[in-house]
Amino acid sequence: MFGVDYYPEQWTEKDWDEDITILKNLGITSVRIGEFTWALLEPEEGKFDFSFLDAILEKFHKAELSVVLGTPTASIPPWLYNKYREVVQTSIDGIERIVGTRRQGCFSSKEFWVASERIVTSLAKRYGKHPAIIGWQIDNEPGHEGSDISYSRSSLKKFRKWLKAKYKTIQNLNYSWGNVFWSAIYNSFEEIELPGRHVASNFNPSMIQDFYRFNSDSLIQYIEMQIDILKKYTQNQILFTNLYPSPFLPVTDMEQLVRNLDFVAWDNYPVWGPLKEPYPHPFVSACLEYSRGLKNKNFIVAEQFSGMQGHDILGYLPAPGQIGLWMMQSIAHGAEELYFFRYRTARFGQEQLCYGILDHSKDITWKYKEIKTTIQQIRQYADDFINEDVPASVAIIHDIDNVRNLKHQPISEGLKLSPVPFAQVGYDVEIANWYAALNVLNVNTHIVPSASTDLNKYKVVVLPLYFMMDKEFVETIESYVRNGGILILGYRAGIKDKNGWMIDKIPPCYFTSMAGVQVSRFEAVGNDLVKLKFGLLRGNCSKICEIVEPLTARVMARYNDKKKHYKGEAVITVNRYHKGKVYYVGSSLTPSTFLIFYYKVLKKAGIKTHFYGRYIERVFRKGKLHDYEILLNHSHSTKWVGWKKLKPYEFKIVPLKKSM
Amino acid sequence: MFGVDYYPEQWTEKDWDEDITILKNLGITSVRIGEFTWALLEPEEGKFDFSFLDAILEKFHKAELSVVLGTPTASIPPWLYNKYREVVQTSIDGIERIVGTRRQGCFSSKEFWVASERIVTSLAKRYGKHPAIIGWQIDNEPGHEGSDISYSRSSLKKFRKWLKAKYKTIQNLNYSWGNVFWSAIYNSFEEIELPGRHVASNFNPSMIQDFYRFNSDSLIQYIEMQIDILKKYTQNQILFTNLYPSPFLPVTDMEQLVRNLDFVAWDNYPVWGPLKEPYPHPFVSACLEYSRGLKNKNFIVAEQFSGMQGHDILGYLPAPGQIGLWMMQSIAHGAEELYFFRYRTARFGQEQLCYGILDHSKDITWKYKEIKTTIQQIRQYADDFINEDVPASVAIIHDIDNVRNLKHQPISEGLKLSPVPFAQVGYDVEIANWYAALNVLNVNTHIVPSASTDLNKYKVVVLPLYFMMDKEFVETIESYVRNGGILILGYRAGIKDKNGWMIDKIPPCYFTSMAGVQVSRFEAVGNDLVKLKFGLLRGNCSKICEIVEPLTARVMARYNDKKKHYKGEAVITVNRYHKGKVYYVGSSLTPSTFLIFYYKVLKKAGIKTHFYGRYIERVFRKGKLHDYEILLNHSHSTKWVGWKKLKPYEFKIVPLKKSM
Amino acid sequence: MFGVDYYPEQWTEKDWDEDITILKNLGITSVRIGEFTWALLEPEEGKFDFSFLDAILEKFHKAELSVVLGTPTASIPPWLYNKYREVVQTSIDGIERIVGTRRQGCFSSKEFWVASERIVTSLAKRYGKHPAIIGWQIDNEPGHEGSDISYSRSSLKKFRKWLKAKYKTIQNLNYSWGNVFWSAIYNSFEEIELPGRHVASNFNPSMIQDFYRFNSDSLIQYIEMQIDILKKYTQNQILFTNLYPSPFLPVTDMEQLVRNLDFVAWDNYPVWGPLKEPYPHPFVSACLEYSRGLKNKNFIVAEQFSGMQGHDILGYLPAPGQIGLWMMQSIAHGAEELYFFRYRTARFGQEQLCYGILDHSKDITWKYKEIKTTIQQIRQYADDFINEDVPASVAIIHDIDNVRNLKHQPISEGLKLSPVPFAQVGYDVEIANWYAALNVLNVNTHIVPSASTDLNKYKVVVLPLYFMMDKEFVETIESYVRNGGILILGYRAGIKDKNGWMIDKIPPCYFTSMAGVQVSRFEAVGNDLVKLKFGLLRGNCSKICEIVEPLTARVMARYNDKKKHYKGEAVITVNRYHKGKVYYVGSSLTPSTFLIFYYKVLKKAGIKTHFYGRYIERVFRKGKLHDYEILLNHSHSTKWVGWKKLKPYEFKIVPLKKSM
Repeated sequence: MFGVDYYPEQWTEKDWDEDITILKNLGITSVRIGEFTWALLEPEEGKFDFSFLDAILEKFHKAELSVVLGTPTASIPPWLYNKYREVVQTSIDGIERIVGTRRQGCFSSKEFWVASERIVTSLAKRYGKHPAIIGWQIDNEPGHEGSDISYSRSSLKKFRKWLKAKYKTIQNLNYSWGNVFWSAIYNSFEEIELPGRHVASNFNPSMIQDFYRFNSDSLIQYIEMQIDILKKYTQNQILFTNLYPSPFLPVTDMEQLVRNLDFVAWDNYPVWGPLKEPYPHPFVSACLEYSRGLKNKNFIVAEQFSGMQGHDILGYLPAPGQIGLWMMQSIAHGAEELYFFRYRTARFGQEQLCYGILDHSKDITWKYKEIKTTIQQIRQYADDFINEDVPASVAIIHDIDNVRNLKHQPISEGLKLSPVPFAQVGYDVEIANWYAALNVLNVNTHIVPSASTDLNKYKVVVLPLYFMMDKEFVETIESYVRNGGILILGYRAGIKDKNGWMIDKIPPCYFTSMAGVQVSRFEAVGNDLVKLKFGLLRGNCSKICEIVEPLTARVMARYNDKKKHYKGEAVITVNRYHKGKVYYVGSSLTPSTFLIFYYKVLKKAGIKTHFYGRYIERVFRKGKLHDYEILLNHSHSTKWVGWKKLKPYEFKIVPLKKSM
Repeated sequence: MFGVDYYPEQWTEKDWDEDITILKNLGITSVRIGEFTWALLEPEEGKFDFSFLDAILEKFHKAELSVVLGTPTASIPPWLYNKYREVVQTSIDGIERIVGTRRQGCFSSKEFWVASERIVTSLAKRYGKHPAIIGWQIDNEPGHEGSDISYSRSSLKKFRKWLKAKYKTIQNLNYSWGNVFWSAIYNSFEEIELPGRHVASNFNPSMIQDFYRFNSDSLIQYIEMQIDILKKYTQNQILFTNLYPSPFLPVTDMEQLVRNLDFVAWDNYPVWGPLKEPYPHPFVSACLEYSRGLKNKNFIVAEQFSGMQGHDILGYLPAPGQIGLWMMQSIAHGAEELYFFRYRTARFGQEQLCYGILDHSKDITWKYKEIKTTIQQIRQYADDFINEDVPASVAIIHDIDNVRNLKHQPISEGLKLSPVPFAQVGYDVEIANWYAALNVLNVNTHIVPSASTDLNKYKVVVLPLYFMMDKEFVETIESYVRNGGILILGYRAGIKDKNGWMIDKIPPCYFTSMAGVQVSRFEAVGNDLVKLKFGLLRGNCSKICEIVEPLTARVMARYNDKKKHYKGEAVITVNRYHKGKVYYVGSSLTPSTFLIFYYKVLKKAGIKTHFYGRYIERVFRKGKLHDYEILLNHSHSTKWVGWKKLKPYEFKIVPLKKSM
Repeated sequence: MFGVDYYPEQWTEKDWDEDITILKNLGITSVRIGEFTWALLEPEEGKFDFSFLDAILEKFHKAELSVVLGTPTASIPPWLYNKYREVVQTSIDGIERIVGTRRQGCFSSKEFWVASERIVTSLAKRYGKHPAIIGWQIDNEPGHEGSDISYSRSSLKKFRKWLKAKYKTIQNLNYSWGNVFWSAIYNSFEEIELPGRHVASNFNPSMIQDFYRFNSDSLIQYIEMQIDILKKYTQNQILFTNLYPSPFLPVTDMEQLVRNLDFVAWDNYPVWGPLKEPYPHPFVSACLEYSRGLKNKNFIVAEQFSGMQGHDILGYLPAPGQIGLWMMQSIAHGAEELYFFRYRTARFGQEQLCYGILDHSKDITWKYKEIKTTIQQIRQYADDFINEDVPASVAIIHDIDNVRNLKHQPISEGLKLSPVPFAQVGYDVEIANWYAALNVLNVNTHIVPSASTDLNKYKVVVLPLYFMMDKEFVETIESYVRNGGILILGYRAGIKDKNGWMIDKIPPCYFTSMAGVQVSRFEAVGNDLVKLKFGLLRGNCSKICEIVEPLTARVMARYNDKKKHYKGEAVITVNRYHKGKVYYVGSSLTPSTFLIFYYKVLKKAGIKTHFYGRYIERVFRKGKLHDYEILLNHSHSTKWVGWKKLKPYEFKIVPLKKSM
């Protein structure tokens, strides 16, 4: 149940034996190794040396520590780049990812593909039945650090092929992208260039959308190639790859990526780099729920925070108890396995400031002690519930094509946030905003992809940021509502089709009759706050302000801002539709306004809320013998939940009588 | 008088007929088409297909809608770039403008020139006498989005030739640029490189100035080439090209550009992209006056705002009435024709968020209704005055060489503003600052280029930002003042010559005797405010603070800031010079301080002011039968102008008894 | 004692004679010339023309003005770049420094080396015994404007050689850098690329550290080459090169650079470019002390501020008296010669806004008068003390390897400050912060390099930012303390070795027993302030907050911030160690908190402090006949020092009775 990420290649053989003892004492039963060892295992093209792996696996096996082995393709050996220059990714700014960093391999590069096949096949053949190995991690954080998109020549070549496969004729592509606009009618697929850097006006949004889809497909095909090899040679070993924060940063369709894997795994860093405070706890819970939701089953944390992390700059020091609290939070939301990143801090290399359970010395640390105690505390109850499904009656739907669309066309400054040049996490932050109040109301809520979700399991379905719509999914939604479902629909829903064309209807277009409203006007207010009111209750909204015109709907809230000429116009409405109901939310509410809104909606829907202030999280879990409420105090102060006292950063697992 | 920008190529033939009906109902009499159709009209090199244009022109002709046809060179067809890679512009960062965006063609590229000649000639021959066509728009916003400057290899080659033509010998160039500085003495024109990106110290300012001039010449020659072709083949069709906001963003000499065109046309977007508020109305009026001033005659708005606009991010939603108000503002300042951008919103392409009169659906919108009503309201009186000159007794002079000089050598942070990397709009903002108070005092004021202006038409001439001086123009000014003119001269006037050499005299150098002052010291205070006073009245200034030493002048205002060691020194002076008078303003005044200053100056000069608060604009126009005062309420509140009530964003055309 | 920087090539021969008269009247005895004249002296490869230099040297000689001649390698002639393209530097962004700017020559380029040898040899031969010449300035500000690091192909080639020379085998390099990390094991030196731009994760810190060291070596070798030539051909002429602000901006080991030169020279600009205020005076004093400390002897100011300076943007205007005050400050801290930059302001070129003593005209300026008066005032006493050592009992130690390390791994946002992309001046600002309170307490303090300093001269030694440690220097320190020295040791001391490996001990590692503390936890708080207290006195700290655990030490100050979970933990401790004492400071104190701390430490150490408020500086100097206290009022107000009144920006030299 608890493991560590371990890098034996960075230590001496003498260390290995000592480390195994230290790990066993901590309560560790599994280790993840190997994901950055390509150059070590294949020191020259086609020449392998597995002596190191053989030796360490032998030791783990003897010590009864199970092993997850990583395929080492996340960082290429220098000889590969030296021989095949087109092997590497290129960023939008034309920067090649050369040797000396990581995530260099371009998923569209033939040479990278061939070399990856070779090393993975060799590993799979040799260790596919090794008794110590319980599973494989494929690559490491594929797509991370901007490697989800490559502007290399390899990428261009493969993109043209991908377009030809998709559109068959260039006429078809010209029509679908609307290339008559600005005179961009191509005569052949060979005339197409990459939508890279531009000076002023960007490339056609339909083209960018396709380029993002292509990159997703290319990455997924590459991972599928590794899956196929591993499935061929392994026996009784699980397969996963590890996703990285935040969920919607990459253009990759993660739901598709994990489809042929056994588990979703995620790397959980509630604070990283120069951040002065951890992410708000609902953001972390949202990420955990996202990970759980991709396969709608429990998952693995492949890297669980155990110490301050950063490459060249650090920030927040976790308070006593907080590392343990974050362990509990992961498990509460459905993690079945936690691998701590990392056992001991590297003395050299780019991660020498990524602190682990031990620091650079081998002395036992305060972190070691805290984790040991917490493992013991969690084990008391966890066996009963940890493998059980996380129940929920509310679901938030996300959609990868909208993640991509928002990245290049956010409409509002408030939906754009680029902490580093290659990232646009507007979708992440806004989904977390729609989730946060549900989390603070302590209503178990799933976060699930549009592609594979059975809506009928949920009483309430929340669909924010659904600008680009799929008509089939609109029909699924319609049928859900028609049969009694409650839908909460966000602003700008349904305005675009999958080609990227705006729908030639008044928004919300195909949602109009369901929602009972139309929207002819809206303002993009960035991050400014605009006042609204629900009857007498005051609130605020932001980002997009739609002026909602009720057709059959009833108004729930109106703009109330004297600086705005649309003061008095509707912003939230509710509409009965057959057996169901549709709430239409024409703006992005602030967290406390969402609290009011959701409270009203959930009450009507007969879903119980548990509000204990903004820092207390309560997760409800069902076990084999008991039900449980898991209480987590995410604050620096002592808090009370009824008669239960929670010290700063304390958590409690409270067994309840089993419900039906 | 009212037209629309229309893109029939983006819609179906079925739409065309419906659209014509909708347009006629709106009161539209003209359409502008064709400016982005190159790939459609010439699908392969030298093969033309005019069937689309023939068909749509036929329909317009039948419907009695006149047409302005755009030459389609603002975006090249993919085949052109595919065949001739040197056809495209390159930005200072080395970014090529490839196919998929617009404004790619490098004005210095031979291949672009040849291809442009071919398509324009074909169009001119075919439609030069078409009865539906009343005029041609050449290219579209040439120079826009940073395309006024190209760092391509084509540009380098032509720049060397341009320099050789200008300087004849390399010795002459070395002397003029001062290349003895930092050892940059060239032995031949072939040794000269482009003044592109640099790490720390920039290139020689004289070199940059010449490079800007060269780019201006190259662009103008290219447009002249199109003018020549069109003049050859057309009959009774007017020619214009459309300038874009803001006026001083490009390095192009617009006065020269329009010299051989029939009209100035300008694209008027009082709000665009993520802006949260429209530009202050005096800024828009300044731009309109600038457009009028270039030929000192009435002009066309080729793109008049009709809906929210932006590429991937939007902002402010115009209030009810405001779109109509902006129509009136354009006309009040001398627009004779307004083409709304655009009739219906594109469903695809990079401008799918550039909203038009109709949205993406064909439903009639609130904007359609507002524009229809406003057209009717304006037509009541407009025939009487719309073709008459806009009178003024005050003029502000701008100078293209100073626009260029300020771009690379702004002296003060306060004169530098780069909202996007390729723009430096410090000159724009500062000219608007010198204009704003005149606008708020409601004194009709022209904004005219130094190159071609008859100063003697004006009682008061304002000359700000005239750092780089032309001795001949200084003499023109001198003679204007000598004969009774009133000159308002701005800080740092006359410090540089046209080679970019600083004058070896104490500033204001050749203006010294006229102004009766000298300036040995100044501070560049950025955007900080520095206190000053006129007698008892308090004010503020900024950007540059010159310590003005009166020689023969009288002090009007002094610094009054205890944080400044020059507290008590003079900042504004006035000097009698022969029959005239020179005010010297040694700093950039804040708008309200300019109000005090101008009020004093205009009162002395016997020019009547009309101050109704900062949001009311009053423009005085002379008609054939009446005089008119056009009152515009640019505020969100109801305002009173004497006994006349103006609702939020309302305007009124008030006929007056005709004056002499 | 007073000279000017003069550029006769920028003026006419007629000017030369007038200028000499003006200079003599000012009290000038020396001129620095020639440092940007390469193209003039060698107009074609290998063809020289010294007529200009011959003529002007003749005139100076006659006028009894001594000359410092600059070797002109800081800006290359166009023909050199035209012929040998690999001669130039390349920035990390791939920008080549082409002709038209300066500092182009890549120190690793063979062609630049050869061409430099040729011109320097020619000059040395011709003028090595010229009677007017008293010295040579080699190059000009080598390494300035980011030229301390080059990413050119020449640089790559030489870097590989440098690595081979250092590590002998690739295995050795792989081990030392820890290349097993992220699979970067090289098979040969030829596989190594430059650690240039990266998309997300940077290159290995050990690699970057070596690349910086290599660049330093390359620059120094280049300067040594010029030294060797000049030493061969000159007689009785001193050699120096001029360093530029700020001291720790470059990666160059300046202590090593100046080892074979006769003097340190520094360019002193207390305000530059768009700055709205001068640097705080302790920052300038720190720079002066740094310059003095490099050879632990008096130094030259090769460029002393005489007028507003900037390339395209200006800022602060010095107040009356302030230029003179800054002259005195330079001399007080050990400058023996001041060359004013520059005599007259260039009319053209990139420095036409770098104002000199005269402006663009030849009229006598207020600056001329102020400098003339100040020279007379200083000369009254200066002869007695100017050539004497600056005494001090406190020293701050800096270390070039830590400058480099902090540049790529600052650990805290608070230790990172990049005013321009190629600069990271975190080390500069933090050293100034450790110095400022000592300066305000008016305790003469040396700033000296770790490499060559005799610690035993000082009662108190301050060692901040010593993250990367050299074991030998730790032993030197240990022995200093053991024998009675007082050490003030900064946070994170001793955590890394010279390979860049983190030490496998609990910090402060090898300092633990000396300091009597250990540090298991710290937070990087950026620029946030964290409260602390010394007994009842309150203070603040920032950047890094270590939780100091006393082993044998006594606690002096504790965190006192209720927002921090480590409130109550120790931050400053003191430990007796044999005959000495070690203060450990686990955070960056704010200047006023440093004041409290240093006051306590110095009092205990028996060192007298002189606090007259934060704007009064007092420097103590010993002369041949008298001692002196030099009092400088750096404020805009009149101040009192005891009974002595100092007007704004006034200074006073007060002779004291000579002490022992």
